Amino acid sequence: MPKETAARRGTNLPRIADFNQAVILDAIRHSVDGLSRVELARLTGLSAQSISNITRRLLGRELISEGQRLEPSGRGKPRTLLQLHPTGHFAIGVHIDPTITTVVLLDLLGDVVASAESLPASTTSPENLVDAIASQVNELVTSQGVTASRVLGIGIAAPGPVDTKAGAVLHPPLLPGWERVELRRLLHEATGLPVVLHKDAAASALAELWRGPRGSAGVHEDFVFFYLGTGLGAGLVINGELLGGSSDNAGEIGHLMVDADGPVCSCGMRGCVGAACMPRTLVDEAASAGLITAPRNDNDPREIDELFTQLCDLASRAGPESARTAAHTSVRNLDPAVSREARARQMLELSAARLARGAATVANLLDVRAVIFGGPAWSRIANVFLPILQDTLLTTTEARQIHDVVALGSSIDDGVGAIGAGCLVLEHAFSTRPSTLLLGANS
Amino acid sequence: MPKETAARRGTNLPRIADFNQAVILDAIRHSVDGLSRVELARLTGLSAQSISNITRRLLGRELISEGQRLEPSGRGKPRTLLQLHPTGHFAIGVHIDPTITTVVLLDLLGDVVASAESLPASTTSPENLVDAIASQVNELVTSQGVTASRVLGIGIAAPGPVDTKAGAVLHPPLLPGWERVELRRLLHEATGLPVVLHKDAAASALAELWRGPRGSAGVHEDFVFFYLGTGLGAGLVINGELLGGSSDNAGEIGHLMVDADGPVCSCGMRGCVGAACMPRTLVDEAASAGLITAPRNDNDPREIDELFTQLCDLASRAGPESARTAAHTSVRNLDPAVSREARARQMLELSAARLARGAATVANLLDVRAVIFGGPAWSRIANVFLPILQDTLLTTTEARQIHDVVALGSSIDDGVGAIGAGCLVLEHAFSTRPSTLLLGANS
Repeated sequence: MPKETAARRGTNLPRIADFNQAVILDAIRHSVDGLSRVELARLTGLSAQSISNITRRLLGRELISEGQRLEPSGRGKPRTLLQLHPTGHFAIGVHIDPTITTVVLLDLLGDVVASAESLPASTTSPENLVDAIASQVNELVTSQGVTASRVLGIGIAAPGPVDTKAGAVLHPPLLPGWERVELRRLLHEATGLPVVLHKDAAASALAELWRGPRGSAGVHEDFVFFYLGTGLGAGLVINGELLGGSSDNAGEIGHLMVDADGPVCSCGMRGCVGAACMPRTLVDEAASAGLITAPRNDNDPREIDELFTQLCDLASRAGPESARTAAHTSVRNLDPAVSREARARQMLELSAARLARGAATVANLLDVRAVIFGGPAWSRIANVFLPILQDTLLTTTEARQIHDVVALGSSIDDGVGAIGAGCLVLEHAFSTRPSTLLLGANS
Repeated sequence: MPKETAARRGTNLPRIADFNQAVILDAIRHSVDGLSRVELARLTGLSAQSISNITRRLLGRELISEGQRLEPSGRGKPRTLLQLHPTGHFAIGVHIDPTITTVVLLDLLGDVVASAESLPASTTSPENLVDAIASQVNELVTSQGVTASRVLGIGIAAPGPVDTKAGAVLHPPLLPGWERVELRRLLHEATGLPVVLHKDAAASALAELWRGPRGSAGVHEDFVFFYLGTGLGAGLVINGELLGGSSDNAGEIGHLMVDADGPVCSCGMRGCVGAACMPRTLVDEAASAGLITAPRNDNDPREIDELFTQLCDLASRAGPESARTAAHTSVRNLDPAVSREARARQMLELSAARLARGAATVANLLDVRAVIFGGPAWSRIANVFLPILQDTLLTTTEARQIHDVVALGSSIDDGVGAIGAGCLVLEHAFSTRPSTLLLGANS
């Protein structure tokens, strides 16, 4: 028998009340036109009395409002639809990326009310960036006429790895000089608002979870979000909850090996998916092949990003002669007889095949139903990448006898990182995680 | 907004009672000498009245018993220690492996009361194997004088992938002819007992979780179990719970790429960790290098297993000249100047380096604190593999600025699959998963 005992905690009535309130709010949030109290009782399994008490509290806190009144089909009382009160509260989301900083104001539905862009993190010091963000937060809230007390807080999505306990970014590989920056404390001091910090990929997965459907298909209960930005990361959603791991750093997939013949990574190994699929590698390879001009400054994420756009534009003009290459053609074997456009496209296809192998590996490990792709780089490559990703996931995953694994583009075209950052705040406020039921040490 | 609503369920008092009962039982199970009612109240956060009611029920069901009576240090009542009643109930575990079938009888602590071996699955039909298992279950229970009503059920650990809903193995790669065999139904029909089926690697992880300490260090709350048998699989434990994924097939890691220069896998790719580390590959490579004799029948898992033992024995006799090779030495570059023993050892070291890369990749993805290695092949290679695994996990994981990732050998030397199979039954009976709090559709 083991020596030490760290028992699980029990639960009690006040905890249940909080949890059930979150369950009700969640059901209303996910409904199309709102739900009546009777429907809520049926959906959640709670008693009419509990529903009545909880909805009264939610109305008082302006989290929900009463909408349309439905007359009964037979005898009985009319039913009133309860809806989320979208502008009862707001959340701020901040996405820190080497190429751009985005700030959004979200309503309770997670919809963007207003947004602004700020300095890219790679061009400024953390202190200057925090000042810039603070004034933009202030401007967004003021310009929308939002009462300060209705702002629940600020979420920050930052490149990993992160120290969520300290609210700090650690050593983001693409932000030299940003060593252990306590962004949460700095931004709290600058704004007075509660601040929460998480990884960009995790926040993006949460955005998908928060705004996507929660259906019986289960796709949106178990998925991996592949975040494609300046770097590559994953956000994991299992049983409808974000899986953080022991230090909220789950989802580090950069050094997952996908191609024996791939480019050399910063870690010294060959074939890491991060190196194989990041815009910078593709830009370097395309420049070496004479398809685009070489970057003037290899350390400027914005120039790399512009050249990446050029490469994607070139590939999008490829004609029908650029049929899909075999999945494991080497970049060194690109067909020189075809046009520049076709070679650009083949280069992207090769990168897609590498990413597909990585996606299949992660899908096998976690037995998810879907891998969702998004992030700043995604929209430029989606049309080339998605068919290859879909094909690989459907045909090579281990559990395919039991269920399909589908590849999907993110439902959020633009700003998934910033929206996810705001969702961190909403999640914090309205979580229905069963683990919140357990009695804390200080309860 | 999405169209469909599948709300989370609320919770209520009867559910809480069940959950709190499981919490109490769990706390007692993990204590060294038992716990008093006062200690239980402090540990679980539950009221004295709840503790009193729940422990009375547990005593009545013979799940716990009263032990030592402690006199108070000052005034007040004496305290009685409550302990698990280990022989109040039992569970059967069956491990189906290509090389051997193992059946164990476990008490409530998860300790082995008796065990037996049966036909290897690779040498017989499913029907014959089920008959053999059923008579051994009967023999074990009878020989130990266990009342039938005290046997909670049978757990089966089988090679993945599995269909846990149907209780079937699907197409285990090393058991040709075993296509979609409904082992759960067959064994239930043969014994009359409830039967649960899961993957060998998942069951092994559960054995580690059930029998290991639950301390504040967190190592045993977040870990991956690498199961090394005829094949390679992983069991995932996150927040102290087994992570099954959407179809209980999480942990399929066989095709994780770890070495550009590795052997060709059955999937057609090069460098999959399953192929690189399975005994059969090592035996083939060692035979090609003239270190051991070649297998007479390449499809006999037991012969491969015996030759693997020979290879490990050879390596264990290597002298001090076989200093550890560089992590990425190719099997084709093994130093021919050294002894056969040293070359055998270098071959295992190369395999360990490959496994280490795979372990680091999985640790990064899930942000675990530990990777635990075990299974039928482990004890033969542990002394060569463990230092290499420990070194790689400590020095290359992404979250190492926040926490160490340790490599550990399983705390269960022998029969982890069968013990894990029995733990599936115990887990089913005594789960404290918070998700069990939610109201089911039929409650």
